[in-house]
Amino acid sequence: MQKNIVLASTSTLYGQDYLAYLSPVVQALFAGVNEIIFIPFARPGGISHDDYTKRAADFFAQHNIAVKGLHTFASPLEAIQQAKGFFTGGGNTFLLVKQLHELGLMGALKAAVENGTAYLGTSAGSNIGGINMQTTNDMPIVYPPSFETMGLVPFNLNPHYLDPLPGLQHMGETRETRIAEFHTQNAIPVVGLREGSWIRVRNEVITLEGTHTARIFEQGKVPYELNVQEKIVF
Amino acid sequence: MQKNIVLASTSTLYGQDYLAYLSPVVQALFAGVNEIIFIPFARPGGISHDDYTKRAADFFAQHNIAVKGLHTFASPLEAIQQAKGFFTGGGNTFLLVKQLHELGLMGALKAAVENGTAYLGTSAGSNIGGINMQTTNDMPIVYPPSFETMGLVPFNLNPHYLDPLPGLQHMGETRETRIAEFHTQNAIPVVGLREGSWIRVRNEVITLEGTHTARIFEQGKVPYELNVQEKIVF
Repeated sequence: MQKNIVLASTSTLYGQDYLAYLSPVVQALFAGVNEIIFIPFARPGGISHDDYTKRAADFFAQHNIAVKGLHTFASPLEAIQQAKGFFTGGGNTFLLVKQLHELGLMGALKAAVENGTAYLGTSAGSNIGGINMQTTNDMPIVYPPSFETMGLVPFNLNPHYLDPLPGLQHMGETRETRIAEFHTQNAIPVVGLREGSWIRVRNEVITLEGTHTARIFEQGKVPYELNVQEKIVF
Repeated sequence: MQKNIVLASTSTLYGQDYLAYLSPVVQALFAGVNEIIFIPFARPGGISHDDYTKRAADFFAQHNIAVKGLHTFASPLEAIQQAKGFFTGGGNTFLLVKQLHELGLMGALKAAVENGTAYLGTSAGSNIGGINMQTTNDMPIVYPPSFETMGLVPFNLNPHYLDPLPGLQHMGETRETRIAEFHTQNAIPVVGLREGSWIRVRNEVITLEGTHTARIFEQGKVPYELNVQEKIVF
């Protein structure tokens, strides 16, 4: 089966509606699919699983795609195995990863997506497409049993990638410094994905899409920019 | 014995030398102490333990205090038990906490400081003075065996606390949003400590010191400001 994946930096662009900028992408990704499973575990701002699922369902209704929350199934494992498509929303990556591991679902989700079930991730939902969650920006509000994630792509993501703000006198680390610190401990390449861009996987071909170049970090190399529509190869 | 602790938001203020603004504080904290142990494990930017220790030693030489790196002792446990004072520098909190737990030193350090050995922390070194490290800003570049820290104070810290930047169109969470998410999962109060401020513990009295009010987050309450020189009581 062909891999069919979108990993987006953010769900929402400034001043726009939820997922609006991804409408054409969603249409192509989920062509022929009339029902998907939404994974609400990252719960941004502590929103309930039901309310978060409704937010996703409202958007997908425009595309005539029904949405069911993974939390509503008696057997989430079977639900994943039988799903026609997935959307994992953003929020807190630690919360999302803890829940997926504790429910024993990370492996099943990976298997389903690698077998061709379409997958959309935004923010935290994109982080779990990487090898591990160790380049998330999120606060460790819970302790997951492992930082390992699905490894749908052979690298890690840093969603909401932010360039250093000129003139800022704050002494906290820049995003680039943080990723350089990651590379003192890990050899995994990192794609810094700016808001408005996403990663597209079709079969084994991985490309950068959207409106911004991505910043690529490889251990031992000077970070560099990758252009939109270029392949991501390490 | 009296507790004698300083937990600072940052080591360095913009445009100033390392630790310079803390000189008077260091003099009072380490009065009568001529040698301290430096804990270099947070390694900002991947600096070596030796180089990081030298940076600290260069500052403390001005105060006629000798500095030895904890990494240089054959038995770091004994070194902690016999120390006259401690300084834990900033960097990556995950790295620091992993190392302290794996070497079995977190409990010994807590015991020594609670028995009256003077302790200075900056940034990551302040985070470990809280109940756990779950309100750090750092990237999870390694997986610590636990997020628990020393609990020298009955709350958590958020060093380098940053107010929302007006006009920013970036959709990543603000610091306040992140801490609110922490409180969907945890009841521990959080002190958002701006750069230039520090927490002073003398015996059982905990006060805010420095140049900025602190932002206080309690579960179920609207966040509020605490003035300099006020006691921190929960």
